Amino acid sequence: MSFRKIINDPVHGFITISDPLIFQLISHPWFQRLRRINQMAMSYLVYPGAVHSRLHHALGAYHLMHNALYELRTKEIEITQAEEQAAKIAILLHDIGHGPFSHALESLLAKDVEHETLSLMIMKTLNEEMDGKLSMAIEVFKNTYHKKFLHQLVSGQLDVDRMDYLTRDSFYTGVIEGMIGYDRIIKMITVHDGELMVEEKGIYTIEEFLVSRRLMYWQVYQHKTVLSAEMTLVKILERAKWLYLKNKLTVEEDNRLGKLLFKEIVHFEKSHLAMFCDLDDSDILFSIKNWRTHPDPVLSLLCNALLNRDLLKLRLQSEPISIEEFTEKKAALEKKLSISAEDSSFLLFIGEAENSLYDPNNEKINMLFKDGRVRDISQVDTPLIHQNLSRPVKKFYICFYQA
Amino acid sequence: MSFRKIINDPVHGFITISDPLIFQLISHPWFQRLRRINQMAMSYLVYPGAVHSRLHHALGAYHLMHNALYELRTKEIEITQAEEQAAKIAILLHDIGHGPFSHALESLLAKDVEHETLSLMIMKTLNEEMDGKLSMAIEVFKNTYHKKFLHQLVSGQLDVDRMDYLTRDSFYTGVIEGMIGYDRIIKMITVHDGELMVEEKGIYTIEEFLVSRRLMYWQVYQHKTVLSAEMTLVKILERAKWLYLKNKLTVEEDNRLGKLLFKEIVHFEKSHLAMFCDLDDSDILFSIKNWRTHPDPVLSLLCNALLNRDLLKLRLQSEPISIEEFTEKKAALEKKLSISAEDSSFLLFIGEAENSLYDPNNEKINMLFKDGRVRDISQVDTPLIHQNLSRPVKKFYICFYQA
Amino acid sequence: MSFRKIINDPVHGFITISDPLIFQLISHPWFQRLRRINQMAMSYLVYPGAVHSRLHHALGAYHLMHNALYELRTKEIEITQAEEQAAKIAILLHDIGHGPFSHALESLLAKDVEHETLSLMIMKTLNEEMDGKLSMAIEVFKNTYHKKFLHQLVSGQLDVDRMDYLTRDSFYTGVIEGMIGYDRIIKMITVHDGELMVEEKGIYTIEEFLVSRRLMYWQVYQHKTVLSAEMTLVKILERAKWLYLKNKLTVEEDNRLGKLLFKEIVHFEKSHLAMFCDLDDSDILFSIKNWRTHPDPVLSLLCNALLNRDLLKLRLQSEPISIEEFTEKKAALEKKLSISAEDSSFLLFIGEAENSLYDPNNEKINMLFKDGRVRDISQVDTPLIHQNLSRPVKKFYICFYQA
Amino acid sequence: MSFRKIINDPVHGFITISDPLIFQLISHPWFQRLRRINQMAMSYLVYPGAVHSRLHHALGAYHLMHNALYELRTKEIEITQAEEQAAKIAILLHDIGHGPFSHALESLLAKDVEHETLSLMIMKTLNEEMDGKLSMAIEVFKNTYHKKFLHQLVSGQLDVDRMDYLTRDSFYTGVIEGMIGYDRIIKMITVHDGELMVEEKGIYTIEEFLVSRRLMYWQVYQHKTVLSAEMTLVKILERAKWLYLKNKLTVEEDNRLGKLLFKEIVHFEKSHLAMFCDLDDSDILFSIKNWRTHPDPVLSLLCNALLNRDLLKLRLQSEPISIEEFTEKKAALEKKLSISAEDSSFLLFIGEAENSLYDPNNEKINMLFKDGRVRDISQVDTPLIHQNLSRPVKKFYICFYQA
Repeated sequence: MSFRKIINDPVHGFITISDPLIFQLISHPWFQRLRRINQMAMSYLVYPGAVHSRLHHALGAYHLMHNALYELRTKEIEITQAEEQAAKIAILLHDIGHGPFSHALESLLAKDVEHETLSLMIMKTLNEEMDGKLSMAIEVFKNTYHKKFLHQLVSGQLDVDRMDYLTRDSFYTGVIEGMIGYDRIIKMITVHDGELMVEEKGIYTIEEFLVSRRLMYWQVYQHKTVLSAEMTLVKILERAKWLYLKNKLTVEEDNRLGKLLFKEIVHFEKSHLAMFCDLDDSDILFSIKNWRTHPDPVLSLLCNALLNRDLLKLRLQSEPISIEEFTEKKAALEKKLSISAEDSSFLLFIGEAENSLYDPNNEKINMLFKDGRVRDISQVDTPLIHQNLSRPVKKFYICFYQA
Repeated sequence: MSFRKIINDPVHGFITISDPLIFQLISHPWFQRLRRINQMAMSYLVYPGAVHSRLHHALGAYHLMHNALYELRTKEIEITQAEEQAAKIAILLHDIGHGPFSHALESLLAKDVEHETLSLMIMKTLNEEMDGKLSMAIEVFKNTYHKKFLHQLVSGQLDVDRMDYLTRDSFYTGVIEGMIGYDRIIKMITVHDGELMVEEKGIYTIEEFLVSRRLMYWQVYQHKTVLSAEMTLVKILERAKWLYLKNKLTVEEDNRLGKLLFKEIVHFEKSHLAMFCDLDDSDILFSIKNWRTHPDPVLSLLCNALLNRDLLKLRLQSEPISIEEFTEKKAALEKKLSISAEDSSFLLFIGEAENSLYDPNNEKINMLFKDGRVRDISQVDTPLIHQNLSRPVKKFYICFYQA
Repeated sequence: MSFRKIINDPVHGFITISDPLIFQLISHPWFQRLRRINQMAMSYLVYPGAVHSRLHHALGAYHLMHNALYELRTKEIEITQAEEQAAKIAILLHDIGHGPFSHALESLLAKDVEHETLSLMIMKTLNEEMDGKLSMAIEVFKNTYHKKFLHQLVSGQLDVDRMDYLTRDSFYTGVIEGMIGYDRIIKMITVHDGELMVEEKGIYTIEEFLVSRRLMYWQVYQHKTVLSAEMTLVKILERAKWLYLKNKLTVEEDNRLGKLLFKEIVHFEKSHLAMFCDLDDSDILFSIKNWRTHPDPVLSLLCNALLNRDLLKLRLQSEPISIEEFTEKKAALEKKLSISAEDSSFLLFIGEAENSLYDPNNEKINMLFKDGRVRDISQVDTPLIHQNLSRPVKKFYICFYQA
Repeated sequence: MSFRKIINDPVHGFITISDPLIFQLISHPWFQRLRRINQMAMSYLVYPGAVHSRLHHALGAYHLMHNALYELRTKEIEITQAEEQAAKIAILLHDIGHGPFSHALESLLAKDVEHETLSLMIMKTLNEEMDGKLSMAIEVFKNTYHKKFLHQLVSGQLDVDRMDYLTRDSFYTGVIEGMIGYDRIIKMITVHDGELMVEEKGIYTIEEFLVSRRLMYWQVYQHKTVLSAEMTLVKILERAKWLYLKNKLTVEEDNRLGKLLFKEIVHFEKSHLAMFCDLDDSDILFSIKNWRTHPDPVLSLLCNALLNRDLLKLRLQSEPISIEEFTEKKAALEKKLSISAEDSSFLLFIGEAENSLYDPNNEKINMLFKDGRVRDISQVDTPLIHQNLSRPVKKFYICFYQA
């Protein structure tokens, strides 16, 4: 009997794995670790259902890749067995470079290295372990493979990554109006001159996809309470590091978080990968739980705030936060808590959030018309996807501890 | 034990009727007739699941009215028992004036009378039967009741009618990306100065609602095949009338359709109501089935086209259909079928479909900000709901028989 | 580009038709007529959402057949292209012999001919039209094809017909606890010695399937109000025929219903097929609407009862209805309405409803164990699917008009 | 404006909190800690979606309690405001005594104390903090309150706890055939002589509920891989303790897990509560991650098995595991790994799993008939819920490391 594993997914139904190499990758400890990394970081403090893991998302994206390739083949797009395997591996591993709490801590744990770069480093390491079997997948991932559409399915405006995470995040948060028609999008894609396109009649579904993404962005990913929680998480680690550098915080020799957070890694290299892949959400939570009772009042305050969901206040607005307000609030806080200006910067800070509906300059959604013409969606004659889309929405926030 | 009927609804779960007067209305033959009127006319020729009835939609809208009033009361908006009953009756009966195949035949069966006018006529007649118990409901329906928000819930940009039909039509067609967050909208509405408003934080859900409505419009309600089928239905009845006036089509004395279609009713009056309310989809289908074998080739051709789903071709485009194309195609058809210019006008014709995302001139979605300000959604600082929304999208079509 | 039609289905997502012959069958007027036949007859009087058509169910079952064959092939069961086509055609047409209101009128319109026999007659006629292309499908349907499992997928304890209608009926009624795990069942089936089997680990899903079917039976299909409505429908047609034979009811020469209902067809033959396939729900409804005002008080009473949902009362119980109650109620009714004993038999009658959870004698669900043994599910060591299952539950009812 | 918090729940829609006391309880750190305890322990190793938290389940059960009380009131059952609050608090806190990984570690962390006892201890402590405001809730929880049905809604055969967890677990695992009709059950419950009953017509829904529960039990909760993972978790902690007692494992002074696991607490008392409530899943995971590299080969083997999902094999069967097989396998393992008999008992062991569909002896589902009679569901005349139900199904397993 042929190889076959089936996995239940409340979002897509059954996911089937019928390629032993793919199952081997899923079974790898570095992939299994994604079970212990929450896909949506701190969103579950607002949406209690949003506790799904990165592993679950990766499996879902793999499943959509399978469906997308199947559809393209019915449209007589040639895709070899090897290309199918490569595209599936590329999507399965596209986010393997994520660390604990995903995006929230991205810049802190592997300094100046984006998760895509880490994903690539990990893929290369796995490729060595597996005698080069991932070489084509790496080409697809890096977009050096000649069939561009394979890369575009992994990473592009209409990749299966987005289709899965928007659908999955909408499902798990219960924000049903964020539901996109991923099934219809997959039916509507095609390949023209080697590039991924959407058939003309898919235009409204694509519009709806862009607007749903925007809704999810502001209503979920950048919800003010989520933002506050994720910034608190960042401030906790920054404060811990600050204390460590001042010798006010010690860390066990074998503490996994400490190894990465406190060491000044100038160039993140392959030799650091094992350390990185050893981390997951539980390491961060464990340390935060420890620090609840740390003598530093700022650190303990932040840790308790996060764990007890007694968060810093956060206000989002369209205009920049005025210097007056910032200065005034900061001074008041310092006075109230008898803390220094440096201390207070961990408890009161400002920032920006930004999102564009669609940026025709550096990304493209090409529509293929029945008459063979190709036009970017922003060029299509419809008043919604038009001039305004490229202009990103920028919002400003102030986040502060309120005693 | 108190009065209570529960009705299963796959869309909203259970619908509860706990007011005997409302149950009496639901039991009325004129309401029960809505079971035999398809909510989405001919859409089921494209979306086979779209076979739900007007009765089902009316019950769903009633249910959402119940939920909306419940929410408003938790926000300390005063709504008396009598007002609750009135609003529920108004929504239950808001569409009772629809005839067979709903909008598709609206202009043909009750000449120059819109379905809202018919709904009002029916409500008045029922009010007499029920000793004036519907008087306040009629006031709400006509918008003469002093609490404007009750009318706005029945008929306005964010009424429960739209919330139900968009949700229900999305559900039954399977166009899941048309799903709106009706539950969240209901949580976000409030009343300010007697008018229905949406709280500030509901803005993305409202945006998504408008875009989903637009998607449903073009992808479902005005889908080219649906449009073709509904125009074919219209042409069938027009042709039948044309033949009748030429004494080429007879009709049984007691034929229910004939009574309305072939009589030249100058002013539609209360006395015609019983005739109107005696009609439903089965009457139309029955006659169309009879006419499949009528000696007039145009009539029989159209009837077979509709019943066998072998429809006229239809092309939708952004530019008006050129006179050249129209003239040329028409001449060719006349020659091919050896028919007159008058005959061919039933088999080849042009038309327009139009939809605006949001028209700030004659409808309003008021947003209530935390600071107490009220602004129309088109005035809110967000690049999506902006200038372009008021400009309606107009499309042009040519529909033609292709031998 | 290859042939491909996609159809939206709220139940299964997208249904793809990629075989021109199958599309040709779907386009046939006899198949299209299934759009106008309600899958669940009168159930919509209790469950307003249950208005889906026979055509929709046939498409859904076709889709599940596609999935089932796909799964079996991944288990290395050999299925040729021709067999795939044959199995798909067989399931698509398995119910094409249904007439108006499906089961409810089965015995009345094509006397003594079951719908399966009619399906076969229709398939043979279509086979002639299509130059023998349906020959293998007919073999599969009749179970004369050597690979038994293909027939078992069309018609057996675990056929895709049941999987679709239970799922679809549960979906459209909103009786979510009737939901079966059809997706898992399809993953669990296999073929052993040419017969369809279920893998050992599917046992709980099969149990749940049987119990859900039982729930749907009593809670939906044989719900007392549904039963009352469907018996009323039968009584209407019986009364009409009775009046016709007494020359008290005339019928237009060209009335489609009359042709079948009132003619004494001794042997239903191929020559009657066209008449039969010309009928749909609208013909029945049209006549019932006419008969509301028929001078016969029994006929008009029944027609109004059905159309206005002011139904006869019905009581279901475990014991047979006592003769005393029956006689007493009947006499009282005759007195009250001043009608004869013969007349009253249309307004007051008794009957039985019966359902077995699982009958191991004439149907089989074979379980295939890991060690290669095969056992009927009733032989598996689990206390639920055991001795009691074969004993059918019989219920008795009295149905009566209550003035 | 009145107090109101709304929470998105993908399972039930919106959950509304309108009572400040209840919000205060939800905000308590001991309740918030439930966010970090997985409702389904290790099930996510088989069902990757099953990562929902105890907090989410508690909120869901609270929501169903709200709905159930609302329905009972419409049936004119008297429930005071204070009783409503008490019942809602009782259900909200009913599982607050669960520790990390819920049931899996129940017996290990608070020796000989069941989670219900812990819940009660915690409720009493919170009651002191809150000046006795939870007193009636505690009475309801302990079943000393005179209106028995309130307790039965919290804890009984048809309590809202089960309704929520079966529904939620079915939703998050994707085992849709486990879906129960909780909405219908809530519509069907009533109170008779102070006890919770189900109306006669709910019988099939109750049957389906019992069978779905059984399916969830064997297919999910006691799935062989889940069982293996949860037993591995237990063995890890047992081995760690064993090593600790032999001075082969040290633990930081402040390790939260160590405090409870390694101390010989003879009587678990109120003074231990704070320690217990300080634990969550992250503490266990953190230690297991540490122990992957512990010098003890048994401990490190088990920790790697769990984290990398490279689990012990487990076989479930109807007959007890034979002594021969056990002895033989154990000897072989000892030889292969060169370990002692004591060591091998952590890597190879046998056990039992047991589940009854319905036990009429110590739990009751009372059905209330229209004629006023009350009968236990096992006495109702239906062949499914009959003699066999009380007989529990017992299965036996052997779980072993396979090198």
